[in-house]
Amino acid sequence: MVFCMDPYGIRRVVSPPGVLPQQAQVLDPTLPLGEDELSIEVESLNVDAASFRQIEHSVGTEPASIAAEVRSIVEARGKMHNPITGSGGMLIGRVKEVGPRHPAARTLHPGDRIATLVSLTLTPLRLGEIRKVRPEIDRVECSGEAILFATGLWARLPPDVPEKLALAVLDVCGAPALVKRHARPGQRVLVIGAGKSGALVCAQASEALAGKGEVVAADRSPAALATLAALGACDKVLALDATDAVATLHAVEGAGGPFDLVVSCASVSGTEMAAILSVRDGGTVIFFSMATSFTAAALGAEGVGKDAELIIGNGYVPGHADLALGLLHRHPRLRAWFEDKYAR
Amino acid sequence: MVFCMDPYGIRRVVSPPGVLPQQAQVLDPTLPLGEDELSIEVESLNVDAASFRQIEHSVGTEPASIAAEVRSIVEARGKMHNPITGSGGMLIGRVKEVGPRHPAARTLHPGDRIATLVSLTLTPLRLGEIRKVRPEIDRVECSGEAILFATGLWARLPPDVPEKLALAVLDVCGAPALVKRHARPGQRVLVIGAGKSGALVCAQASEALAGKGEVVAADRSPAALATLAALGACDKVLALDATDAVATLHAVEGAGGPFDLVVSCASVSGTEMAAILSVRDGGTVIFFSMATSFTAAALGAEGVGKDAELIIGNGYVPGHADLALGLLHRHPRLRAWFEDKYAR
Repeated sequence: MVFCMDPYGIRRVVSPPGVLPQQAQVLDPTLPLGEDELSIEVESLNVDAASFRQIEHSVGTEPASIAAEVRSIVEARGKMHNPITGSGGMLIGRVKEVGPRHPAARTLHPGDRIATLVSLTLTPLRLGEIRKVRPEIDRVECSGEAILFATGLWARLPPDVPEKLALAVLDVCGAPALVKRHARPGQRVLVIGAGKSGALVCAQASEALAGKGEVVAADRSPAALATLAALGACDKVLALDATDAVATLHAVEGAGGPFDLVVSCASVSGTEMAAILSVRDGGTVIFFSMATSFTAAALGAEGVGKDAELIIGNGYVPGHADLALGLLHRHPRLRAWFEDKYAR
Repeated sequence: MVFCMDPYGIRRVVSPPGVLPQQAQVLDPTLPLGEDELSIEVESLNVDAASFRQIEHSVGTEPASIAAEVRSIVEARGKMHNPITGSGGMLIGRVKEVGPRHPAARTLHPGDRIATLVSLTLTPLRLGEIRKVRPEIDRVECSGEAILFATGLWARLPPDVPEKLALAVLDVCGAPALVKRHARPGQRVLVIGAGKSGALVCAQASEALAGKGEVVAADRSPAALATLAALGACDKVLALDATDAVATLHAVEGAGGPFDLVVSCASVSGTEMAAILSVRDGGTVIFFSMATSFTAAALGAEGVGKDAELIIGNGYVPGHADLALGLLHRHPRLRAWFEDKYAR
């Protein structure tokens, strides 16, 4: 045990000096555990899909070749940080040791099963044996040891939720948690995008409105909207293409006018103006879509003189994992759909 | 006068059909004035610097050649929207006619001198005579007629402020206005970037704190910081390179720890992590830098488990122009510096 506080893991950066672990070329996963660190006995790596495809493209689809490439990356970098795609993934394992000054010192114990919610691009990792490569779910089953810093997010894997379902939910759990902070009874809320995060956001917004106001789901797929409506996750649906700002404006005008809160969970780029035109003056837009362009949002709002608060969807809100899992627990139909669609 | 409401100017889009004026290839500036539109007798175009340089690069630096190219663009597109750079600029002129249903129908009158605060990329424009090309200030003095839609922002040019000073201030007036909404007495505020918008933000934050709390200005230029401190616009200064997140973290720790409110006015890219590491949990970061990466901010905060509200600096807040000009009025030393540095 090393007696020092290093919440961002800076002491484990080998090269280049003076950067954060995510920007580092090489991390040192072999240092003794710090007082504010947590070590994990790894069970499996959920490699980012883009990274997995790149590895297959580079070395072929033979499990042994993929395993060798993963090992080569981790041995070179001290983390599973694909140097070509720049992406990582997350991992599942059991708590090995919790430093006495780690924030979870009293809540986590050796043997607890957890998933990391921070990227593998900043997680120090030593690999043991690679037991199995499962390309169909971008997974590498292996032993090994990983380190979480004091600021590194994790979630306990609930025994009553299938692992794949839990991971699918944890992947987007920041969205409903942030929406819970902003949605208020009486509001009209528009959720753009009826996918995984859009569905959770609709359900969470509906809870937050407590029967006063309305949640409207928008998507270009009528089938996705019909499903969401059938699940009871929203009050109304609007079929529209959010890359078409003018058509979206007309659809919103036909649906009762601009909204108090607009949440963008769109999976495509070019939807910033649709979101901005859909919110009322004084309202709020939260952008969760990773395809959001900062300048398109900032300059777009100015260009149409819209006084709206524009929020970058921070993936972390305290308690977000429990909140999202709780949402599924309270919505069995949503859970069944989620399981069928994203966790088969 | 055309009797219709068209706050975004969609009816003036010629091609392609169904887009907003900014995305349009061609606008029609010749349509009769709409009930909710405003027409302007143009005096000069302040062409975006990138656009002006591209035109010089393309046709040479002869004023007549530049004038011909500007005319050619405006005649082809119905707006001064450089097809290569995609950028516009703004214009100065006198109000010609105000539609009875324009929001400024009671506040603006024919002959009032105004600047447009929306981009020329969405402003319908017909050129008359081009009187003078002034490459040293990216300006084209000309006659002509421009149209503002109901949502198009403008500012009255105050008679007691030199025009160049007013334009320099209006260019960044959204920043202090948004900061005024978020800064509260008792807070510790960090402003990253001691340039034009950083200086206004420091002065506005200091006013908002009303003597309780502190405003700290950070920049990599000790000279810029010394100037800001001498102007009395901030309480403390921190010399740091915000592209170096770890060094920024150490500097912030040495200056009393994380801040309640961090405002990024940096002019370079790669400063998102520095801003995120500088704010306390539960605090707010406002990003005004156009070099901000949406994903770097969203994923960066998640990667270090920071629960901060991340805000996209919307360039428009009602009353922003008057607020910024008023700030200069109350800070004669700041005004003198601004004039010397940005409006000579």
